[in-house]
Amino acid sequence: MAQKGFNAYKMAQEQFEKVAELLELDETTRDLLMTPMREYHFSIPVKMDDGSIKIFKGFRIQHNDARGPCKGGIRFHPQETADTVRALSMWMTWKCAVVDIPLGGGKGGVICDPHDLSEREQENLCRGWVRQIARDIGPIRDVPAPDVMTNSQHMLWMMDEYQAIFGAQYPGVITGKPVDLGGSLGRTEATGYGLVYILREALKENNIDITKSTASIEGFGNVARYAAELFIEYGGKVISVSCWDQKDSCAYSYYRPEGIDIKELVKITDRFGTIDKKKAEGFGYKCCPGKDWLKHEADILIPAALENSIAKENVNDIHLWC
Amino acid sequence: MAQKGFNAYKMAQEQFEKVAELLELDETTRDLLMTPMREYHFSIPVKMDDGSIKIFKGFRIQHNDARGPCKGGIRFHPQETADTVRALSMWMTWKCAVVDIPLGGGKGGVICDPHDLSEREQENLCRGWVRQIARDIGPIRDVPAPDVMTNSQHMLWMMDEYQAIFGAQYPGVITGKPVDLGGSLGRTEATGYGLVYILREALKENNIDITKSTASIEGFGNVARYAAELFIEYGGKVISVSCWDQKDSCAYSYYRPEGIDIKELVKITDRFGTIDKKKAEGFGYKCCPGKDWLKHEADILIPAALENSIAKENVNDIHLWC
Amino acid sequence: MAQKGFNAYKMAQEQFEKVAELLELDETTRDLLMTPMREYHFSIPVKMDDGSIKIFKGFRIQHNDARGPCKGGIRFHPQETADTVRALSMWMTWKCAVVDIPLGGGKGGVICDPHDLSEREQENLCRGWVRQIARDIGPIRDVPAPDVMTNSQHMLWMMDEYQAIFGAQYPGVITGKPVDLGGSLGRTEATGYGLVYILREALKENNIDITKSTASIEGFGNVARYAAELFIEYGGKVISVSCWDQKDSCAYSYYRPEGIDIKELVKITDRFGTIDKKKAEGFGYKCCPGKDWLKHEADILIPAALENSIAKENVNDIHLWC
Amino acid sequence: MAQKGFNAYKMAQEQFEKVAELLELDETTRDLLMTPMREYHFSIPVKMDDGSIKIFKGFRIQHNDARGPCKGGIRFHPQETADTVRALSMWMTWKCAVVDIPLGGGKGGVICDPHDLSEREQENLCRGWVRQIARDIGPIRDVPAPDVMTNSQHMLWMMDEYQAIFGAQYPGVITGKPVDLGGSLGRTEATGYGLVYILREALKENNIDITKSTASIEGFGNVARYAAELFIEYGGKVISVSCWDQKDSCAYSYYRPEGIDIKELVKITDRFGTIDKKKAEGFGYKCCPGKDWLKHEADILIPAALENSIAKENVNDIHLWC
Amino acid sequence: MAQKGFNAYKMAQEQFEKVAELLELDETTRDLLMTPMREYHFSIPVKMDDGSIKIFKGFRIQHNDARGPCKGGIRFHPQETADTVRALSMWMTWKCAVVDIPLGGGKGGVICDPHDLSEREQENLCRGWVRQIARDIGPIRDVPAPDVMTNSQHMLWMMDEYQAIFGAQYPGVITGKPVDLGGSLGRTEATGYGLVYILREALKENNIDITKSTASIEGFGNVARYAAELFIEYGGKVISVSCWDQKDSCAYSYYRPEGIDIKELVKITDRFGTIDKKKAEGFGYKCCPGKDWLKHEADILIPAALENSIAKENVNDIHLWC
Amino acid sequence: MAQKGFNAYKMAQEQFEKVAELLELDETTRDLLMTPMREYHFSIPVKMDDGSIKIFKGFRIQHNDARGPCKGGIRFHPQETADTVRALSMWMTWKCAVVDIPLGGGKGGVICDPHDLSEREQENLCRGWVRQIARDIGPIRDVPAPDVMTNSQHMLWMMDEYQAIFGAQYPGVITGKPVDLGGSLGRTEATGYGLVYILREALKENNIDITKSTASIEGFGNVARYAAELFIEYGGKVISVSCWDQKDSCAYSYYRPEGIDIKELVKITDRFGTIDKKKAEGFGYKCCPGKDWLKHEADILIPAALENSIAKENVNDIHLWC
Repeated sequence: MAQKGFNAYKMAQEQFEKVAELLELDETTRDLLMTPMREYHFSIPVKMDDGSIKIFKGFRIQHNDARGPCKGGIRFHPQETADTVRALSMWMTWKCAVVDIPLGGGKGGVICDPHDLSEREQENLCRGWVRQIARDIGPIRDVPAPDVMTNSQHMLWMMDEYQAIFGAQYPGVITGKPVDLGGSLGRTEATGYGLVYILREALKENNIDITKSTASIEGFGNVARYAAELFIEYGGKVISVSCWDQKDSCAYSYYRPEGIDIKELVKITDRFGTIDKKKAEGFGYKCCPGKDWLKHEADILIPAALENSIAKENVNDIHLWC
Repeated sequence: MAQKGFNAYKMAQEQFEKVAELLELDETTRDLLMTPMREYHFSIPVKMDDGSIKIFKGFRIQHNDARGPCKGGIRFHPQETADTVRALSMWMTWKCAVVDIPLGGGKGGVICDPHDLSEREQENLCRGWVRQIARDIGPIRDVPAPDVMTNSQHMLWMMDEYQAIFGAQYPGVITGKPVDLGGSLGRTEATGYGLVYILREALKENNIDITKSTASIEGFGNVARYAAELFIEYGGKVISVSCWDQKDSCAYSYYRPEGIDIKELVKITDRFGTIDKKKAEGFGYKCCPGKDWLKHEADILIPAALENSIAKENVNDIHLWC
Repeated sequence: MAQKGFNAYKMAQEQFEKVAELLELDETTRDLLMTPMREYHFSIPVKMDDGSIKIFKGFRIQHNDARGPCKGGIRFHPQETADTVRALSMWMTWKCAVVDIPLGGGKGGVICDPHDLSEREQENLCRGWVRQIARDIGPIRDVPAPDVMTNSQHMLWMMDEYQAIFGAQYPGVITGKPVDLGGSLGRTEATGYGLVYILREALKENNIDITKSTASIEGFGNVARYAAELFIEYGGKVISVSCWDQKDSCAYSYYRPEGIDIKELVKITDRFGTIDKKKAEGFGYKCCPGKDWLKHEADILIPAALENSIAKENVNDIHLWC
Repeated sequence: MAQKGFNAYKMAQEQFEKVAELLELDETTRDLLMTPMREYHFSIPVKMDDGSIKIFKGFRIQHNDARGPCKGGIRFHPQETADTVRALSMWMTWKCAVVDIPLGGGKGGVICDPHDLSEREQENLCRGWVRQIARDIGPIRDVPAPDVMTNSQHMLWMMDEYQAIFGAQYPGVITGKPVDLGGSLGRTEATGYGLVYILREALKENNIDITKSTASIEGFGNVARYAAELFIEYGGKVISVSCWDQKDSCAYSYYRPEGIDIKELVKITDRFGTIDKKKAEGFGYKCCPGKDWLKHEADILIPAALENSIAKENVNDIHLWC
Repeated sequence: MAQKGFNAYKMAQEQFEKVAELLELDETTRDLLMTPMREYHFSIPVKMDDGSIKIFKGFRIQHNDARGPCKGGIRFHPQETADTVRALSMWMTWKCAVVDIPLGGGKGGVICDPHDLSEREQENLCRGWVRQIARDIGPIRDVPAPDVMTNSQHMLWMMDEYQAIFGAQYPGVITGKPVDLGGSLGRTEATGYGLVYILREALKENNIDITKSTASIEGFGNVARYAAELFIEYGGKVISVSCWDQKDSCAYSYYRPEGIDIKELVKITDRFGTIDKKKAEGFGYKCCPGKDWLKHEADILIPAALENSIAKENVNDIHLWC
Repeated sequence: MAQKGFNAYKMAQEQFEKVAELLELDETTRDLLMTPMREYHFSIPVKMDDGSIKIFKGFRIQHNDARGPCKGGIRFHPQETADTVRALSMWMTWKCAVVDIPLGGGKGGVICDPHDLSEREQENLCRGWVRQIARDIGPIRDVPAPDVMTNSQHMLWMMDEYQAIFGAQYPGVITGKPVDLGGSLGRTEATGYGLVYILREALKENNIDITKSTASIEGFGNVARYAAELFIEYGGKVISVSCWDQKDSCAYSYYRPEGIDIKELVKITDRFGTIDKKKAEGFGYKCCPGKDWLKHEADILIPAALENSIAKENVNDIHLWC
C-alpha cells in the first residue's frame, strides 16, 4: 500500500485496458470489468480495552461474480484505501478466471494496524466487520480469506460471528480457518510452492537444469521461505535471502554462495521476521544491503517481498547468467 | 452538484465539526457521525433501446440509522458523485433528528442524465438500481424517495421491482409514489409550503405584518412556485421570480413591483421551467438579469433554486428593507 | 427468589389447579396450561474484563401464546431458577388474559448478580442472551422487558444486538427501552399508580373516603414510592414506609402518624434504596422493626416489597380499622 | 402438441391406470399419482420491442416430489396447454423413478412462439417466467431444464434472474446452461446416444450383430442425428433419415441403401432442419414421401421425430427383417 | 356452482369485455385482467377417520394484486371447479376496486362436501390446504376468508397451521376468525346489512318512503335474515321469505301480507335453514311454491339466495309496483 | 432410564470432571462443557384416536456444536427425563470428538410409551415434535436420528413434516430414514459390527486368536445379534445370549457351550425380542437366570443390553479365562 503517488487501482485499470485491447473486448464488457460490480464501505465501532469506542473504516469490494461467488482476502493495514482493495479485487477476478476456478473476485480490508490492537480488540474488530457485511457475504455469495496482517484466528472469529448471526454452521463462509476447525491443509506453503512449481516448468521450457541452477531471493517471509525450501528440495541452490531489520531500520540481504540453510536461518529469525545479523555472520552469511539481492550472481531472481521491487531504476543492477 | 472546486461532503463535514464543537461531542460520536455508517456503490447494467448494454454507476449511502430506518431520496444526475451523496445523507440524518422524526439519514444516486434515456431505459435503470440494493433497503432498513430528476413514476418502478423480488406487497419500501398507488398527499407542495410556514413564524417573531411585506424569489420550480402561492395566499406580495432560459443560456429575473400572478406565469412556462420572455414582458414583467433577484427592493429574499446562491461575492447586492 | 423451601412454580401450579377446578377446565386444557409450552435454557459465554470467559446460564420460558406473542421480563439474579421463571411466565399468561390484552405469557432470566459485573460485562451478557435466543423471540413471537435487576440500558443493548443480527430496525422486539429511543412513557410509575387506581376503586365500592384514609406501606422502591405519591395526591395519608437497611442487615419501618413526605424521604435515601436512619429520625420518623409495618394503625396495608409478605404467621399482627 | 383430438394428459392417465392395475396399487396412491401434486399457472407481462406490453400465459406443473426435487423442462410453444404439461410432468416422475434417480417429475411451459419474438423479448419472457415462480422452484424444490424451443441461452437468463432475486449464486437452480457457465457436458448427444445404448443392448439380447444391421430413422433433429452417428460408429448402417420440408410443406424420407453420410447431410441442412432436396439427390439419396421411412427394408426402425408415429394405421406398412 | 351448462368464468369474462369496451381499456390491460395473474392447483392428502388417506383437490386463484394483497374466501363444495374460483377471484378484484379498498382479488376452494367429513377430517383438510399454499399467501400477499361451507372454525385451523409453519403470530393471514381470537365484529350481518344500506339509498334517490314500502325476499339464510331485520328496523314491511325444504325437496315461499316476524320464524327454522311448514302455517304464513317469491305484490324484490335467480324465463312473473 | 436413584446426567458430569482433571482443562472450558449449550423443552399437543388431545412433553438438548452440527437420536420412553437426555447429548459430543467426526452432540426425547399409541398417534407425535423445534434443527444445525423406541418410520414422518414446513427437500435433516428414501445402508448392523471390530483389534493387541475364543453375550437385540453374527463370522464361538422374558417378567440367559446358532434363535424370537423358552430348550439351549450371562465360562463378555450391567455388586460373578 501507499507507495507515494502509486495507485494500485489505476495500475490495475491500465493493465486491464491493455489486455482488453488485445482481446478486442466490446465497450460494455470493458465498462463492466473496469470498475467493481459492488462495493461496501462501512464504519465498525469497536469497544477498546480502555472502555472507549473507536470507529474503524472497513471495506468489501466485489469486483465480479459472473463466474461464481467472489473470493479474496481481508487486509488489516493502517494505509489501506478503497483503491487498493478495488485493485486487488480486480486481480482476484483475473486470477480465478485464468486458472478456471468457478469463483469471482473480491477483496476486503480495514484501516487499522493490528499491532496497536490487543487480542480482544482484534476479536471485536473481526466480529464488527462481519456484523456490517454478513448479509452480503457467505458460501454462495462471497468468501473471504486471510490476507495482509490477518490470520486463521481472525478468520475463526469472523466465521463464529457469521454463525451466531445466522444461527447455524457455515464453515464455507470463510477459508483460511485453523486446520483443525475446517481450514485447508497446505495453505501456508501454497504461495511459495506454487511459485516454484511454475519456476520448475519455466526452467524445463528453457532447458535449464534446476539441479545446477542458483537463485537469489528477496524476502524471508511465508512466500520466500517455502519457495526456498522447495527449490532446494528440487536440487537448486539458494545463495541469498533478504529481510527487514527492525533495529537498523533497513533491509539486509544475507548472502552465502555455497547455499543457504533454511532451518539454520529460521532458528535465528525473530517473530517479526528479522534474521539475527551477528548470528548469521557467525554461520558464514555475508550481510549486504537489502537492494543487493539482485546484484548477486544467480541464475534466478525471486522477488518474494513487496510488489514492484524490480523497476526501471534498478533493472541495471541485475547480475544474471554471468 | 459539481460547482467547480466545491465539495458538498467537505462542506457538510466542516459544518458538522463546528456544531460538534458547540455541542462538545466526544471523539467517538464525532468519528461515527463524520462519515457514513454504510455505503453501497454498484454497477447497473441497463439494456438500451438499441440493444446494447450500458453500465451505470449507482450509490446508496446510509449515513446513520441510530434513530430509525434511513430516509432520503435517489438522485439521477450526470455529475453525481459519491461525495455529494455522502453530504446529502448526512444532512438527512440532521434534518430528521432536528424535527424529531424516528428516521435516520440516507441518500442514493445514479450517474446518468435521464434526459438522454428513453422511458424504457429509465425503467430498466430504476429496476436495476433496486436489484443491486434490494436486500439492504426496505421499510425497516432504508426508505428511498424521489429527488433530483427522479419522480413518482421512477418510484413506482422501484417499488414494483422490490415487490417482484420479495414476492409480496411492500408499499412502505419507498415514498413519493403516485398518490393513487399509495403515495402521500401534499408531497409536491411540501417544500414550498414548509418554507412559507417557517417564514410566517419568523415574520411573527419580528413583528412584521405579512400582508404588508414583499418578497423576491429566486427560481420558479416546485419550491418557488408553491412558496409564492402560499405567501400570496397569506396576503404577501411577490415582486419577482427567476428562471433559467434554455434558449439564451442564462437566468432571468422577472420583476413586477405590483406583484406577480402565478397562474399567469405558469401558463407561459414550458415543461423545462423556462418562462416565455416575450409573453412575460407583454404581461408587464420586467426581464432583468437572473442575479438581480436580490437587488430588487423587497422585504424578504427567498432563494429557491440552487444551493449557495447568496455568498460573499454578492451579499452586497442585496437591497432589503430600503 | 429462593425463600428456603419455597417453590414459586409449585405455588403457581397449585393456584392454577384451584382455579381450573372452579372453571371446570377439561383435562387437556389443564395439561396444556399446567406447564410451559416452550422452554429455552442456554449457556452464555461472556468475555470478562480480565480477559477470561465466564459461562452464564440463561433462560427464556414461553408459557403460552394462544392469545398473542408472549410478553414478560428478563430477570438477572444470582438465585434465579428455571422454576421461578416458569412460575412467572405462567402468571404473565394469566395477567394478560385477565385484562384481555392480546399477548401470551413469557419470562426470562440469567443466573448472575449484575452488581458483580462491570458495565461492559453486563453489555456482553445482554448481547449474549439475545444471540442464543434471537430466532425464537421478536415482535410477533415473544417480547421481553426489564424486570428484576434489568433496566432500560440492558434492553437497549438487547434490541441493538437483535437489530444487528437481523440487519434491520426492530424497535418492537423489546419494551422498556429508554424513552427517547422508543420506550413507553409512564413505565416507571405504572405499577405503583396501577396499584392505587385499583385501591381507589376498591375504596369507592366499600364507601370509604380516600381523603380520610391512612395507609401503611411495606417497601420504598419503585412500586411503593409511586403508590405513596398517588395515594397522597388523592388525599390519603401514608403513615409508614419500610426499607432494607444495608448496614444493619435488617428492614426498618419508618413511621410518622401525621403522614410521610416522599420527597423528604427520597432525599435521604441512597442508591440502594436504604433510608438514612438518623436523618429520618431527625425528620420525626420513628424507626421500628421492618415487620411492624402491618402493626401500625392504618386503614390500608400496601405490601409493595417482596411476595408472600402477609402470611399465616403474621396475619394476627395486623392492626387495621381500629 | 395439439394433434387434433389427442390429449396427452388423458393418454398418460390411461397409461398410469393400466400399470396401476398391474402393480395392484391402492386407491390412495392412484389418486395421488393420477393428477399433479401442484400446478402453477400464471401471467407473464413482457415488454415488447415496440414498447407495448404483451401478456403470456406460463405454467409449471410439479407432478410428484416424493423421490426428490422435481425435474423437467420448460417448453415454449404456441399450442402449449396445461394438459400437455401435466402429461409430461407425469412422465418425468416415471422416468426418474424407473432409472432410480432421486428426483421427482415436473414440467413447465409458456404459450408462445419464440420465432415471433426478438432475442430481447425472449430474454424478457424468460426472466418474467422466473419472477412468477421463483419461490416455488430451486435446487431443493424443482429444477427446470431446456425443452421444446428453449435452449441454453434461455436457461442462462432464467438462472440469472433467479440469482438476482435471491442475491446469491445458484447454479443448481437449472440444468442445460451453456457448458462454460456450469452446464453439463454431453447434454446435446444424450438422447440420441442413450437411444443407441439401449438399442445395442437389445440387439445383444436378440443375438443380432450390430455391424450387420441396418436402420431406418425418422427425423433428422438432435435425437436422430446423434442416434445415427453412434449407430454408425458401432458399425451399423443407416439407410434413411427423414425431415420436414419447409418449402414443400411435407416430410421427405431420404433413402440410400448403401448407407447415409451424416456429415454430408448436415452440410446441406438449413437451420430449420430441412435437408436440401436437390443436393441430397445429387449425393445419391432417393427422396421418398416422409411416411415411407418405415417401408424401407431395414432391421431396425428408429422413430426419432414426433410421438405416436407408429400406429394402427401404418403398422402394416412396416417392412422389417425381410 | 354447476348449473348445467353455466360457466361462471365465461360469464365474468363476458362481463369484463363489455365494461372494457365502455372504459376503452387498451389491449394489454384487457389481456391482463381477462385471466387470473396466478393460479395454484394442488393435491391435499387427508388422513381420514378410518385410517385411509384421501386425496382432495384444492385451489387458490389470485386474479390481480396491483391494488394490494389479494383478498377472497375459500369455498368447500363438491362441484367446485377451477373456473368458478377464477370467476369469483375476478369479481373480488372488481369489488375491492369499486369501493377503493387497497386489496386485490383472490379466491380459493376445495372439491369436497364438508357434510361428509368429520370435524377431525375437516381440520386435517384445512391444515392440508394451508400446507400446500403457505408460502404464497399471507398478510402482505393474499388473505383468505370464510366462504361457501367454510366458517370461523376452519379459518382458525388455517391460521394455526400457518403460524405453526412460520413459527410466529400472524393473525393477519386470514379474516373471519372467531371474534374472540381476532375476528372482525359484524361479519355475520355485513352482507345483509350492506344490501339494505344500498337499498335505503336507492329508495331515497327514487323518493320512495321506506316506511311505506314492502319487500319480498328470496332466501332465509345469513343474507336474507339480516337484510329483513334491518329493512324492518328501518320501518319497511317484509311480506315473504323463502327457503329450501329438505323433506319435500323443493323451495317454499312463506307469505304473510301483514309482514313477517323474523324472530318467530327463526325459532321454527332447523339448523339446515328449513322453516317448519306446519308451524309457519300455524303462525298465519301462507306456504307457496318457492318461485312465487317474485309473484307476491311488493315494492321491492330482494334475491338473497343463489345467483341468477331473476332471468329471462321468469322476469314476467314479477309483480311489482302494482 | 430411571434406575432408582441413578442419574445419568450426574454420572456424565462426574465422568467429565475426571477427564477434565486429567486433561487439565481450564475453568471456562469445564464450565462450558459441564452443561448443555442449549436446551429446548416443549409441549406437544397430539390428537388421539378417540378425538381427545393429549399433551406430551418433548425435549431437544444440544450439548455442544463447536465441532459441527449437533447429532443424536430421539428417544420415546415413559420415564424419559431432561437429565437423561442431557447426559446422552454430552456423550454424543464426546463420541463424535473421539472419532473426529465434524459433528457436535445432541439428543432428544419425548415422555411417552409408543406401545400405548396407535400408528396414527405416533405419526401425530412425530410431526408435533418437529413443529415445536423445526427452526432450531436442520442439516446445518442439529440432525436427529432414531434411538430408543423410535425407528425409520418415525424419522420419515419427522423429515416429511420438516419438509412441509420449509417447503423444500431436506433429506439431510435427519438420519436413519428408510434406506430407499435416503437412509444409510448398514445402519442396523452398525453398533453390533462396530463392537466386534473393536473387539477384533483388542484381541490382536492381546495376541488372542479370535478363532479359538468364546464369548458370552448379554442381550439379543440389534446390538447383540449383529455382534454375535460378526463374531461368529470371524471364527469365534458365542456360548450364550440373554433376553427379557415378557411372560415370566425376568431375564434368561440361553447357554449352549458348543455355540449358539443365531438364525435358529431368531426364528423362535417374538417381535418383542423374547426367545421362546421351550423351543430353545428343544434346540439344546440351557435356560439360566439372566444374570448368569457373566458366570458362563467364556473368554469374552459382551454386555449388549442396558448400561451399567457390570458393577461392583456382580463383578465377582465373572468367570473368565478359566
